[in-house]
Amino acid sequence: MTETASPALHTALAYYQAWTGHDLDKAMSYVADDIVCDAPAGRLEGVAAYRGFMGPFVQILRGATLIAAFGDDQTVLIMYDTETVPVPNAPAAECVTVTSGKITYSRFIFDRAPFDAARKAAS
Amino acid sequence: MTETASPALHTALAYYQAWTGHDLDKAMSYVADDIVCDAPAGRLEGVAAYRGFMGPFVQILRGATLIAAFGDDQTVLIMYDTETVPVPNAPAAECVTVTSGKITYSRFIFDRAPFDAARKAAS
Repeated sequence: MTETASPALHTALAYYQAWTGHDLDKAMSYVADDIVCDAPAGRLEGVAAYRGFMGPFVQILRGATLIAAFGDDQTVLIMYDTETVPVPNAPAAECVTVTSGKITYSRFIFDRAPFDAARKAAS
Repeated sequence: MTETASPALHTALAYYQAWTGHDLDKAMSYVADDIVCDAPAGRLEGVAAYRGFMGPFVQILRGATLIAAFGDDQTVLIMYDTETVPVPNAPAAECVTVTSGKITYSRFIFDRAPFDAARKAAS
């Protein structure tokens, strides 16, 4: 299910291993300074904004399971399931562009509904 | 961005072209009778339940754009953006298993939050 001939995939999987291993600094070493990420809540521009998005998520992350990952020269599509403190099953998919070993663009999809529900239940 | 050597990918793209072209009957011809689909709202079992999920979505579909698709012998990962009546940008990702030319399993990810918000605004 995972094709490793693609250098872009190598980068995307190294990034995935780092953040799912709670090593946010190492994860960010694979992210370009000028990353653009289209996430469910809107566009994030630049590595500081991106880190501000991933940091809180990594803090509530209990575990992750890779579902599938494929890539070619510069595009990677990856899907995984995560277990988080508020939501036990929160799968996500990312389509990332990798340029010179850094993630320069990410299209990020996950379902915000169970996170919204958990927030409401807690308030 | 799209690798066509994979027969599973060929099936998944034919399915995608059919439902995004509003041809639900043709789309369902690529779906196994005993399909299992893990969607954001829960598990759907069997082609009737799956059609009951896709039918209303196809009715509100205005257009779709493929973002990326990759596959190997039996697994396909696909991401696309859709324009729908209530939500102008509703991207989704699917990881499907294809057996003998039919989709037997689908893991389906999209963000329900904007659909929930549109429903609330309309009520």
